[in-house]
Amino acid sequence: MSLTPSPAHDAVAAAPEFCAFDAGAAPVSRAARRFVLDLRLDLRHAGSRSVVVRGEWIGPADAPVVLVAGGISANRHVSGAGGSEPGWWDAQVGPGRAIDTDRLRVLAIDWLGSDGSLDAPIDSADQADALAAVLDRLGVARVAAFVGASYGAMVGLQFAARHGHRLGRLVAISGAHRAHPYSSAWRALQRQCVALGRSEGGVSQGLALARQWAMLSYRTPEEFAERFDAPAVLDGEQARCAAEDYLESCGRRYAARWTSTAFLRLSESIDLHRVDPAAVRVPTTVVAIDEDRLVPLSDLQTLVESLGAPARLRQLRSRYGHDAFLKEEAAIADVLTEALAACAGGAA
Amino acid sequence: MSLTPSPAHDAVAAAPEFCAFDAGAAPVSRAARRFVLDLRLDLRHAGSRSVVVRGEWIGPADAPVVLVAGGISANRHVSGAGGSEPGWWDAQVGPGRAIDTDRLRVLAIDWLGSDGSLDAPIDSADQADALAAVLDRLGVARVAAFVGASYGAMVGLQFAARHGHRLGRLVAISGAHRAHPYSSAWRALQRQCVALGRSEGGVSQGLALARQWAMLSYRTPEEFAERFDAPAVLDGEQARCAAEDYLESCGRRYAARWTSTAFLRLSESIDLHRVDPAAVRVPTTVVAIDEDRLVPLSDLQTLVESLGAPARLRQLRSRYGHDAFLKEEAAIADVLTEALAACAGGAA
Repeated sequence: MSLTPSPAHDAVAAAPEFCAFDAGAAPVSRAARRFVLDLRLDLRHAGSRSVVVRGEWIGPADAPVVLVAGGISANRHVSGAGGSEPGWWDAQVGPGRAIDTDRLRVLAIDWLGSDGSLDAPIDSADQADALAAVLDRLGVARVAAFVGASYGAMVGLQFAARHGHRLGRLVAISGAHRAHPYSSAWRALQRQCVALGRSEGGVSQGLALARQWAMLSYRTPEEFAERFDAPAVLDGEQARCAAEDYLESCGRRYAARWTSTAFLRLSESIDLHRVDPAAVRVPTTVVAIDEDRLVPLSDLQTLVESLGAPARLRQLRSRYGHDAFLKEEAAIADVLTEALAACAGGAA
Repeated sequence: MSLTPSPAHDAVAAAPEFCAFDAGAAPVSRAARRFVLDLRLDLRHAGSRSVVVRGEWIGPADAPVVLVAGGISANRHVSGAGGSEPGWWDAQVGPGRAIDTDRLRVLAIDWLGSDGSLDAPIDSADQADALAAVLDRLGVARVAAFVGASYGAMVGLQFAARHGHRLGRLVAISGAHRAHPYSSAWRALQRQCVALGRSEGGVSQGLALARQWAMLSYRTPEEFAERFDAPAVLDGEQARCAAEDYLESCGRRYAARWTSTAFLRLSESIDLHRVDPAAVRVPTTVVAIDEDRLVPLSDLQTLVESLGAPARLRQLRSRYGHDAFLKEEAAIADVLTEALAACAGGAA
């Protein structure tokens, strides 16, 4: 469907012709509103395309808007507040949380490409443009903050660089202005796992294996040393390592939920990402994890030193490495509370 | 063939019935002698087996013997001195080198399992026992030193623990008393790449992919940041990262030379490895690389603190990480020269 722009913040909830509720999805909180928009976007590498963007927002209709975005496997359902289906970031987003849905209106989308229907190169700039187009449709002229973690931080940097006049503040957690070359190589090999599976008839196995490699990049040797401190054992005639059950279960669950096309396009989107930090002229908090093997501290230091606006680096330690934004609930809440203090009228 | 034991150090070269030169191999240095032995070994996980062990030695017949062993893809041809085929450790082993073949007699074998004919679980203890059996056949009662790097260091620790009465000194570079759980997971996923290729008809592709993942574990983000500092580019409709040509070439070359069985059995052999450091009662030099992602410094510190004999930790920095023993020629030469000073009659 094609939808008419509207200046009203809560037009989505009020006007049926303006949104389409996602009837096929699990029950959503009373306070949350889902929408589906048909948009035409000029993709950076794939020309003009009609795309479907699925989004959700939660929080008072008149509250300042905050965009929230996570990793490539995150989605629009950041908070399950009041509903039966948990959100992927319930620890930080909800009533009374650091991103307080009693005082802020949180908006999130499913990534372009995440439903597997867009089999073309997707860039972080395309995601930022999609968010800007969504804001246009929803009649939101300006957002108070963009809180992005991992790929979401990359998209946040793109949004700040391309649509900075609409943004009050950026919080970029564990995502930099570029993909680190070593991490790019790591992802390239994950895509080869999928390609091997695809070419040989084992699509799901290839995808599950790629996800296992991804998990290894998200976590740290320190965590594995604690959780899986046991020698390999023989399972029949083959050695089996202590972490294999865990990793295989992660891989299987992922492959059951995702298509290989979505994985490949979002994975390569990280590697196509590049932003000139000087083009970001929005006050920014950058959060770095010392142990992150995917986004090294040195890249985030370079980012902070090169940003075109006041910037602050918050450096944390975590045995969860790149996944700290999901696991270190208290430390991340502190960072967010401080960074967003001014967003809801200074009433933090 | 079954060969008769002999007490003479150079019996291999002198007596045709004692050795079989490897006619199929490339030309070898005049000074080097290759041999092939049939041995019966009690394998730790696979019972009593007849195995063929291929070895090579180089250096004066009356010189102190030094065992040299490298990673799972190394072989018996450590030095190409005087011959046309380069050895894998020419930087350290040869006339006038840190492991000086004018003054020491260097002995090395192809790993059990490296020819792909032994499809059973192989342990580092089996490799140590094979070396001891080779020494018996060659009539070598005692060796002055064991210099092992990577998997070779693990086997060196096993040799010291199981056959310490025959050993004067151990140098263990980038190999510990255990496989680190995170590194074990990394190798388990490499084996899954091979398994995926095998199950789906793409054996060579799976093996090449596993090798690419291994390369990533051998090297460091610092090196990749220097060598491959360029954003991904689109190759047709797919992103291609700067390191992909290099990694794919490594993978292809490996898959052309190795069988998947050899890779799987030697890879899991690392994960089955475990030695009680207190059982090592031989003076030991442990060499650790700060940037090694596969064998973390912390494990080598634990090793040194727990060894049952005088031990010294030499800590180096290298952007080559786990591969420093192959790449940091001067620093490794210094360590070896010092550690082996007493071996050739103190004439270092």
